[in-house]
Amino acid sequence: MQEETISAPPRAMPAAEYERRLKTLVLALRRRKLDGAVISEGVSRLYYTGFESSAGTLLVDANEGPVFIVDFRYILMARKAMPFAKCVLQKGGAASQVSRHARCWRSAGYEGRMSVTAFERLRKSLADIASWEAVDDIIADQRAVKSAAEQKALRRAIAANDRLYADVLGKIRPGMTEWDVRGLFRRGADRFAQGESFATIVCAGANGAECHHEPDLTPIPSRGPVLMDFGVVLDHYCSDMTRCVSFGKPSAFYRKIYGIVLEANRRAVAKIRPGMTGAEVDAIARRHIEKAGYGDAFAHSLGHGVGMEIHEGPNFSMGEKRVIKPGMVITVEPGIYLPGRLGVRIEDVVLVTRNGCECLTKSPRELAVL
Amino acid sequence: MQEETISAPPRAMPAAEYERRLKTLVLALRRRKLDGAVISEGVSRLYYTGFESSAGTLLVDANEGPVFIVDFRYILMARKAMPFAKCVLQKGGAASQVSRHARCWRSAGYEGRMSVTAFERLRKSLADIASWEAVDDIIADQRAVKSAAEQKALRRAIAANDRLYADVLGKIRPGMTEWDVRGLFRRGADRFAQGESFATIVCAGANGAECHHEPDLTPIPSRGPVLMDFGVVLDHYCSDMTRCVSFGKPSAFYRKIYGIVLEANRRAVAKIRPGMTGAEVDAIARRHIEKAGYGDAFAHSLGHGVGMEIHEGPNFSMGEKRVIKPGMVITVEPGIYLPGRLGVRIEDVVLVTRNGCECLTKSPRELAVL
Repeated sequence: MQEETISAPPRAMPAAEYERRLKTLVLALRRRKLDGAVISEGVSRLYYTGFESSAGTLLVDANEGPVFIVDFRYILMARKAMPFAKCVLQKGGAASQVSRHARCWRSAGYEGRMSVTAFERLRKSLADIASWEAVDDIIADQRAVKSAAEQKALRRAIAANDRLYADVLGKIRPGMTEWDVRGLFRRGADRFAQGESFATIVCAGANGAECHHEPDLTPIPSRGPVLMDFGVVLDHYCSDMTRCVSFGKPSAFYRKIYGIVLEANRRAVAKIRPGMTGAEVDAIARRHIEKAGYGDAFAHSLGHGVGMEIHEGPNFSMGEKRVIKPGMVITVEPGIYLPGRLGVRIEDVVLVTRNGCECLTKSPRELAVL
Repeated sequence: MQEETISAPPRAMPAAEYERRLKTLVLALRRRKLDGAVISEGVSRLYYTGFESSAGTLLVDANEGPVFIVDFRYILMARKAMPFAKCVLQKGGAASQVSRHARCWRSAGYEGRMSVTAFERLRKSLADIASWEAVDDIIADQRAVKSAAEQKALRRAIAANDRLYADVLGKIRPGMTEWDVRGLFRRGADRFAQGESFATIVCAGANGAECHHEPDLTPIPSRGPVLMDFGVVLDHYCSDMTRCVSFGKPSAFYRKIYGIVLEANRRAVAKIRPGMTGAEVDAIARRHIEKAGYGDAFAHSLGHGVGMEIHEGPNFSMGEKRVIKPGMVITVEPGIYLPGRLGVRIEDVVLVTRNGCECLTKSPRELAVL
């Protein structure tokens, strides 16, 4: 497997990708009649610039080019990475540079996910701005529809997750603890990609009924089910997958529940079309599980968007009114949880296409008996 | 080394520890004449409850017991973990439960580090509260002084980091890339502890002059310096250390710079006393580097607090007016960075004691020649 090991740090995309993203944001700001937006959050800065840093403020002007303000630790690297933005050295707090470069703004967008403290500081440094508007929805909508380059990156992250799963299946043994198996996933995530996209979930036996069980010292049974939920990050894009396996012959009841969840997954994937709302997609799987008599045991949503973050918009959920569009990448993960007995979840990632969807996760969905 | 491998997930402390922490917070709220505080951020929830979750709201009432509101995914585990709090099942958003359990509050503390969006939601659900006050300073001051149990946890995390460093020193070879060496640290952090406390920094040769260099494909030289900055998390507490080594005989200039930085580190550690401000401690190391003629090349602060977060208060920095107290755990990390030439940083973690400080980092500070 040595040849599959990733031995390089995350790469950014070509500059043209970020120029396009910034242009799209500028158009959205103009439609909202905003003079500009302050992009303050790490993942958003990374999305619009490809530059990873623990600090920095990106000012996106609706009429002029973007300005990236960052301290001495990053300024040289930022200038190298961002030919499309003016990079300005921040001395002390960002306030003085921000107020200088946004002095003509009277209305501005901000990220509602920024901290209260940071927003108060920002408002003080831009006291002439009368109208502040949260633009999280603009950013989320833009990020939800993946460009060709993003789809490629997601395919690679998802393929790495498939390889990781095959690798762990070859190593997992009864008697290992859940924590040991989590270790297999973590080490593999570093080999096949650049780390986990979230803390791997491993549930032995009835622990599978706890949706957010933390891996503990419960041993993998010599006869019984194991649920695994895991993902990797590769070049800043995430993957996500859940599979359940059975050690030894599964009980008839487990097979039955597994079959219901698998069918719910398949029905949803078969019917996904652009133009449907997230709620409509959720309902397909939910109805199947309800009809089988386990509606109450499927307490979470059917899925969530995946991209630079492991959870982003849109969702396949009862309350999701947003319409799905080609280029969106979303999980399909129905589940049935019966406390004290068992839990089953089968999760794939799909790409919405022009007339349906493509399942990007290639690992078999049929119940594996080890 | 197998016997040193940590093969268990993070453990919480005994319930009495969290009861004490909550009690201290309650007293501080009363002094501020607040009816209660909403603890919304993950690390703060963990600090006051020992319970790790991706969601949940802790209401700390100045007069009654604490209430923890969390959704179905966590409620059973929360009840098991928190005998000292009333755990309430959240249905839909947290708003209705929050407004019910804090209905008598007229003044309340909130965390300024929470998001603007979440704070707006909170204010709406608690419309009767006339006065909202950020209590980040209360929480930071409390967290800055480590309890006996916390000191023990930090000692273990720092000892694990010492072992990790010795392990990597035995494995690092010229020709490996910075990224490969980062991999050694990451894998080791999983073995000796429960992962990295931040993304390991590895700088070969002149890359050491970039304070926040990201490990890339630069090879470890057969003759030249390497800077490594790394830490682990163990049972929720962090460690942090920087060491520089030389492959082959170091140049006289490198030795000279190394000597200045080492002496700056030693002088600061020798003089730390409770009652000094963070600025006074910073000045000891800074003055030494300035006198040697490299003041401009030491552009960052001397140190930062370490605990459940890798960076917390107080700092050893030019602007730090807070006074240091016994029980505080802070890094001492002077550095000299000469772009294009070299960078040296030597970082230890110290515990402030009643009449000085104890250096918890035990790895040798003298220049290692490999």
